[in-house]
Amino acid sequence: MRGIARRLLSTVENLPIMSPHGHTDPQWFADDAPFEDAVATFLWPDHYLLRMLYSQGVSFSRLGIQDRAGGALQQDRAGGALQQDRAGGAVEPDRRKIWRLFAEHYYLFRGTPSRQWLDLVFSQVFGIQERLSAATADDFFDRIGAALQRPEFRPRALFKRFNIELLATTESALDPLLHHAKIARANVAGDWDGRVITTFRPDDVVDPEFDGFTANINKLGEITGEDVEHWQGYLAAIRARRSVFQASGAVATDHGHPTPGTADLAPTEAEALYRVVRTGAATAAQAELFRAQMLTELAQMSVDDGMVMQIHPGAFRNHNPSIFAQYGRDRGADIPVQTDFTHSLRPLLNRVGNASNLTIILFTLDETTYARELAPLAGHYPCLRLGPPWWFNDSPEGMRRFREQTTETAGFYNGVGFNDDTRAFFSIPARHDMARRIDCGYLADLVASHRLEEDEAAELAVSLAYGLAKAAYRV
Amino acid sequence: MRGIARRLLSTVENLPIMSPHGHTDPQWFADDAPFEDAVATFLWPDHYLLRMLYSQGVSFSRLGIQDRAGGALQQDRAGGALQQDRAGGAVEPDRRKIWRLFAEHYYLFRGTPSRQWLDLVFSQVFGIQERLSAATADDFFDRIGAALQRPEFRPRALFKRFNIELLATTESALDPLLHHAKIARANVAGDWDGRVITTFRPDDVVDPEFDGFTANINKLGEITGEDVEHWQGYLAAIRARRSVFQASGAVATDHGHPTPGTADLAPTEAEALYRVVRTGAATAAQAELFRAQMLTELAQMSVDDGMVMQIHPGAFRNHNPSIFAQYGRDRGADIPVQTDFTHSLRPLLNRVGNASNLTIILFTLDETTYARELAPLAGHYPCLRLGPPWWFNDSPEGMRRFREQTTETAGFYNGVGFNDDTRAFFSIPARHDMARRIDCGYLADLVASHRLEEDEAAELAVSLAYGLAKAAYRV
Amino acid sequence: MRGIARRLLSTVENLPIMSPHGHTDPQWFADDAPFEDAVATFLWPDHYLLRMLYSQGVSFSRLGIQDRAGGALQQDRAGGALQQDRAGGAVEPDRRKIWRLFAEHYYLFRGTPSRQWLDLVFSQVFGIQERLSAATADDFFDRIGAALQRPEFRPRALFKRFNIELLATTESALDPLLHHAKIARANVAGDWDGRVITTFRPDDVVDPEFDGFTANINKLGEITGEDVEHWQGYLAAIRARRSVFQASGAVATDHGHPTPGTADLAPTEAEALYRVVRTGAATAAQAELFRAQMLTELAQMSVDDGMVMQIHPGAFRNHNPSIFAQYGRDRGADIPVQTDFTHSLRPLLNRVGNASNLTIILFTLDETTYARELAPLAGHYPCLRLGPPWWFNDSPEGMRRFREQTTETAGFYNGVGFNDDTRAFFSIPARHDMARRIDCGYLADLVASHRLEEDEAAELAVSLAYGLAKAAYRV
Repeated sequence: MRGIARRLLSTVENLPIMSPHGHTDPQWFADDAPFEDAVATFLWPDHYLLRMLYSQGVSFSRLGIQDRAGGALQQDRAGGALQQDRAGGAVEPDRRKIWRLFAEHYYLFRGTPSRQWLDLVFSQVFGIQERLSAATADDFFDRIGAALQRPEFRPRALFKRFNIELLATTESALDPLLHHAKIARANVAGDWDGRVITTFRPDDVVDPEFDGFTANINKLGEITGEDVEHWQGYLAAIRARRSVFQASGAVATDHGHPTPGTADLAPTEAEALYRVVRTGAATAAQAELFRAQMLTELAQMSVDDGMVMQIHPGAFRNHNPSIFAQYGRDRGADIPVQTDFTHSLRPLLNRVGNASNLTIILFTLDETTYARELAPLAGHYPCLRLGPPWWFNDSPEGMRRFREQTTETAGFYNGVGFNDDTRAFFSIPARHDMARRIDCGYLADLVASHRLEEDEAAELAVSLAYGLAKAAYRV
Repeated sequence: MRGIARRLLSTVENLPIMSPHGHTDPQWFADDAPFEDAVATFLWPDHYLLRMLYSQGVSFSRLGIQDRAGGALQQDRAGGALQQDRAGGAVEPDRRKIWRLFAEHYYLFRGTPSRQWLDLVFSQVFGIQERLSAATADDFFDRIGAALQRPEFRPRALFKRFNIELLATTESALDPLLHHAKIARANVAGDWDGRVITTFRPDDVVDPEFDGFTANINKLGEITGEDVEHWQGYLAAIRARRSVFQASGAVATDHGHPTPGTADLAPTEAEALYRVVRTGAATAAQAELFRAQMLTELAQMSVDDGMVMQIHPGAFRNHNPSIFAQYGRDRGADIPVQTDFTHSLRPLLNRVGNASNLTIILFTLDETTYARELAPLAGHYPCLRLGPPWWFNDSPEGMRRFREQTTETAGFYNGVGFNDDTRAFFSIPARHDMARRIDCGYLADLVASHRLEEDEAAELAVSLAYGLAKAAYRV
Repeated sequence: MRGIARRLLSTVENLPIMSPHGHTDPQWFADDAPFEDAVATFLWPDHYLLRMLYSQGVSFSRLGIQDRAGGALQQDRAGGALQQDRAGGAVEPDRRKIWRLFAEHYYLFRGTPSRQWLDLVFSQVFGIQERLSAATADDFFDRIGAALQRPEFRPRALFKRFNIELLATTESALDPLLHHAKIARANVAGDWDGRVITTFRPDDVVDPEFDGFTANINKLGEITGEDVEHWQGYLAAIRARRSVFQASGAVATDHGHPTPGTADLAPTEAEALYRVVRTGAATAAQAELFRAQMLTELAQMSVDDGMVMQIHPGAFRNHNPSIFAQYGRDRGADIPVQTDFTHSLRPLLNRVGNASNLTIILFTLDETTYARELAPLAGHYPCLRLGPPWWFNDSPEGMRRFREQTTETAGFYNGVGFNDDTRAFFSIPARHDMARRIDCGYLADLVASHRLEEDEAAELAVSLAYGLAKAAYRV
């Protein structure tokens, strides 16, 4: 079995990386400024790390996470390339202290994918073979800090070194896409040939419970010139932004709703609902119904403009209100909930489920839906595809469960390959490596148990690592 | 471990097949006409195949599936033996084209049980060792077509070749059971010794939401002579049909409800509910309550007449209305939903759960209930037994999960062995073979990890493959 | 892989047993009277055995289980040490008959943990290497009976032989803790050095649906002298009992609610709700809300007094009313239900979830919550820890699923090691042995698949077997 897995892996481990869904910062590739240091690059932006440390009593203040009132210093830099005006600036001493604190607690990550991703980054990207611990903390900090100042560790150089064929970022519907424009100019000018595209994520103008929703709609009206006081104008404004994103290279949309609820209201009902929502006074039930109606509207727009639709439902965001109040979003306090797809998606599917040019990629945080709902749905509806294991399930056991629980009903070809879905740029190769290993191990098991021939497994290994993503996202 | 598994398998691989729950067509064994061709025999009647092809953009019309308006040509023949008046008729050229289309898409089934069943049928029943593909499509079509005309490929010959000891079909409460009568006459006359029994499936007269429910009740009254305008007459009519089925050989009933909901209304309430339902004007809630009440009534009837009760809940039928409107039921558009057994079954169990001569076999499409509800329930109530993995879960991984998630709480002896549950007659040996392999693999694991002795495993292997089905269904 | 597992196991198999959560009878250790015989010691008190036998048609009366009306003979002795006044008395002949009946059905337990626990007890504690069956029943009965009369099989001698460092029992809020006082006196007097502590389980005064709730509150008022007619007095009375338990050695509380629902009402609302509940006339919804409010109050008390809080939700108790009416609680008729933690715990967590000195240990019977809710919650909130697999899931496959589904998100250090959670004193070493084997097997898999280094695995093996329990329960 291991021999088969090794043979399969050898055929895919050097394939280019397709990264059609993720959250890296396009400014990195637009400006190509150096990344800052180990703390700002690896610790601060990684909610997986922050949540585990917090769960074991390490406070955010000791980790240097600035609260909302205390200034945005850290947030401006989070995970990011060093700002131009700070390039070459000395590292503040407390960063080293923070790194030591992290290193002392590195044992907490035993058995987690974070540990495997980081170990691979340290060894393969930085050439550090030791284990991170209190004893080696300073050495790691110094070597990483020094490396990051070298030209070969700048974003564009790493993009090439990582063998990335395509990288998608995710931007709000209101984003001016300036970084992508700058990247496009660099592409045209022949300064850089990296392909970085955006993804249209309209949650801030679609979800009535999103922070600043009514102001966001105002802004949507301003930048599109559409009359957003009316339902049809609002829809036209969203269509207009989709066009702008598409012109900028986007091939997909993304929707992070609390549930996968969809609706298909009569036009007059939808219009009436929009009037309520527009005032900012929607009840929770009205907000849910509006999001549900909008998923169907957005699916219809995808039928019209060909953008691939991604739905990421089922996270209870900001479950810990005191963390949210003090430190804001994405600090590791989002918790999954039970999700129903069979009933929820039906209104949308009844409208567009049989459209031949539509692709909707479904993600879940509720693994119970894999075998029960998602594989049967994707194994029937031509528009549906299964996104890879997401977030908490993007892990060796999680990937294995996904394959074991979806393949027998949906097959392999109703999947879309792997998504790294990360803002941690350095970890992208490590994440794809993990996915390729797990998939090759699964395929090898099928071969060893006479459920697949090895030549078929070899073909599938390439599809899972590369081909399916390319086909599903139409890139 | 593999050595143990192989030893266990050698003790069961030649045991006769018990098939106490399935959906083959009794006419095949009554008439013993030849099966038609590869398309009509393997593709058209198999909703597993149709759903996967449809999910990847292969339209039903290209597959030759007739729509409801366009005539019933294909439906009459679906999966079936060639009608007498067509025996020897030439195969229309488009069948070959359809088979080619299927063969071109055969790669879609990699990793699915359909692929394994079909491969085993092709190799073991037809002696074709190649892999089905565009290149081999014609050869498969010709060889299968030629074989099916030979006497040894007629239904009764295959029944013997497959070493089937007992095969149960499933008929509606209103079915005249003519084919079973013909089989019985052949048995008595000594023309054939195959044992094919029916199963009483009264959904069409029990579920107020079933197509044609009120007309079905009218017909129930006619054929039984009972006064179905009243609750007691309706129940008497159902009891009468049970007697007829039992006299015809049936040992079991089967109930395909949307949920496992049960109720135990006071007689006057039940009577009042029936009056509403009888009019055909029941609300969804009333329909659900009536089905729930009927499950309890049917369980009480089983206490009285000794028929084994099977409950198959949790499918959202005809999820895709445009497919249903155009092509009808059982086209692969049924999707599972979350199922609750702990609360749902309680009214029924409180009435008859401790009856010593009652057997209720529970099936599920929601695997989350295996360890949480079904194994604890079957491990306590004397009437409850666990049906094998069903439908989407009738697969290597699905069977393995069933064993791993139920055995530690319910043991092996609260199970009922394997059900092939299929209308695909040719695949019956392949399905039982898969189940026997998986069970022997699981038992071998228990032996290898010192959780069972090998002599016990050997005894269990026979029980799982043969003995438990015989005992549970009382055949 | 097996080599690694064996090396890991060798480092932990002789570690002392920490048993911080269980249900043994403190009287055994207070009085140190001999256990009675095989039936009273192994069969009668074990609801796992009773339920399986009952599910296969073995009636409780044949097993000698007395019904409630028929006298309490068996119940007085259940699982227990022989009463002083009966020591040396002859075993009634029907006990042997009951044991034979059990032995004849011992094959039913193949593949279950009960079988493994009992086999290990028979072989390791009693030195009986045969397999229990009809043929060996008498021999087992005689040898076990004779051994139990010997001094080295008395409770305190076994406690030492089992190498138990700490054993927690569980007592109702109203329990006078006389046995623990007697044990404490023996400790002080130097007669015995075993550490047996109690756990505060106030369900009988917190759950309005508990049998005798209002009388229990009356008694709570009497023994504390608090004014339980008012909300604040009631809370003070509970605090008073906590103090008494703590003074008696308790380090933890335990709460067996139907759901993990929590609430955080305004004080006036809570007071009004208590007034309703106090009358004994609460509706089901009011009872649920009161339990929910009390979980939050009890968590606040834990913040104040430092007792570790354990929540065991999700069992539908006494699902079979005729068994309950005739034989009472804990006869194997409790069935799990779906459980939600993400929404349910939020009110409690919003009040105290970030408290640094609070520990809440969560258990579940619904494994679907492992990866989806429990691991994400425990991997964020500093107060939350994951209890080990509980009840039906305390089994090899259940433990394995727990590790595979929680570790990648919560890590190892948000767990609390193993709980045997048993009233079956003899099985305690067998249960810990099983847990240690499964954990070492899991760790070995991580090492073999390059997800962990062996030195880390060795450290973790000791933590899982011993250290984490000690740390989490603060003992």
